Amino acid sequence: MNKVYVVGIGPGGADQITPRAREAMNRAEVLCGYTVYIDLVRPLYPDKEVFTTPMTRERERCRRCLELARSGRTVAMLCSGDAGVYGMAGPLLQLCPEFPEVEVEVVPGATAALSGGAVLGAPLMHDFCVISLSDLLTPWETIETRLLCAARGDFSICLYNPSSKKRADYLRRACDILLREKAPGTVCGWVRNIGREGQERRVLTLAELREETVDMFTTVFIGSSATREINGWMVTPRGYEAKE
Amino acid sequence: MNKVYVVGIGPGGADQITPRAREAMNRAEVLCGYTVYIDLVRPLYPDKEVFTTPMTRERERCRRCLELARSGRTVAMLCSGDAGVYGMAGPLLQLCPEFPEVEVEVVPGATAALSGGAVLGAPLMHDFCVISLSDLLTPWETIETRLLCAARGDFSICLYNPSSKKRADYLRRACDILLREKAPGTVCGWVRNIGREGQERRVLTLAELREETVDMFTTVFIGSSATREINGWMVTPRGYEAKE
Repeated sequence: MNKVYVVGIGPGGADQITPRAREAMNRAEVLCGYTVYIDLVRPLYPDKEVFTTPMTRERERCRRCLELARSGRTVAMLCSGDAGVYGMAGPLLQLCPEFPEVEVEVVPGATAALSGGAVLGAPLMHDFCVISLSDLLTPWETIETRLLCAARGDFSICLYNPSSKKRADYLRRACDILLREKAPGTVCGWVRNIGREGQERRVLTLAELREETVDMFTTVFIGSSATREINGWMVTPRGYEAKE
Repeated sequence: MNKVYVVGIGPGGADQITPRAREAMNRAEVLCGYTVYIDLVRPLYPDKEVFTTPMTRERERCRRCLELARSGRTVAMLCSGDAGVYGMAGPLLQLCPEFPEVEVEVVPGATAALSGGAVLGAPLMHDFCVISLSDLLTPWETIETRLLCAARGDFSICLYNPSSKKRADYLRRACDILLREKAPGTVCGWVRNIGREGQERRVLTLAELREETVDMFTTVFIGSSATREINGWMVTPRGYEAKE
């Protein structure tokens, strides 16, 4: 069958992979993905053919998957978290017109906003935005505009890719933009290595977050004006619950 | 053990429930939740004690779960989609201070933004907002502000609760607000009964969406200015891929 499954495997542990995602991997003759994600599922499929590629060159990776599928192999392209949120479903579907004989199925998984949110409590209980601080493919001006709009809308905000070697000060820059609209005491949180060994979490204020050093394995949460710390949890009420 | 698991069961099918969520339900002596969600997992646990409550009265439902846990029962509170996105994790954690002896664990699942997004392709591939059109707990003015801020930030937008008997014209009202900032040709989509029997989908323009009649079982997606329809899929590129 000429088929590519784009599979979200969740935060990492096998217990977070849905039966539907497992079934897609079972059917696949070839598992493809970034080395780290392949390593996560390798123990489940010790004998399955894999091909791994570095973090960049996503389009090349997608093209290779579609070529394998055109040649008759069933392929599963693995993504950490969800297949559709900063994952590979987009780049792969963009190449589809060149591979009309290949069927694509997108299999969802829990993205870091959900799996990290669960570790902190319920930071995204009400309306929220997800914004990546990576300017590899997006001009920083666009990221700034989105941060400002998200703050003006009083959304809870989840930040992906908050830092990297090249972007060590990006979280601070983001906090400075958010602080134009949000109070320094706004309840925030971060989770590192979600659902993996060495998982860490912290609930803190926006002013404290500005001074925090985080790495690329960290997901950051900024509360709305209604978000509160309750028994160490980060909790955003659902609207105005007094009405209930 | 005095424990409540707040469990996201995903869009509905058993194949979308993670092993971690299943394990929480296995451990639970009592399954609690809105009737429709209990019915979804009932076949998996025909003999397990359940208590169901109507859609409203969430706080009452959470209090009952915490009381059961305090009395020594292990409880699993089920939520469709994710436990943290318009789910029960928030209301339950808000009551925690009254039940210091009860341990709470939040188990994530795929919310409709992810499971519906996978049906349409990759509408939320880049930065996005999730907004509920329900004004049961949120003033409509707040919803309007968030729609406008999301549009000004050129986010992809996922709309929950786009309609109900009482709110038949809310999607049209939302589209009118978005049309102040977004082009009428903006690529949009909707999915009905995600992952359940009778699943339907449509990719259409924002102008067409304004005229569309949807129900409360529908999740709506509005693209960013970069979102395209490709072979019937709704696809948002990841930033400016020319850079790749």
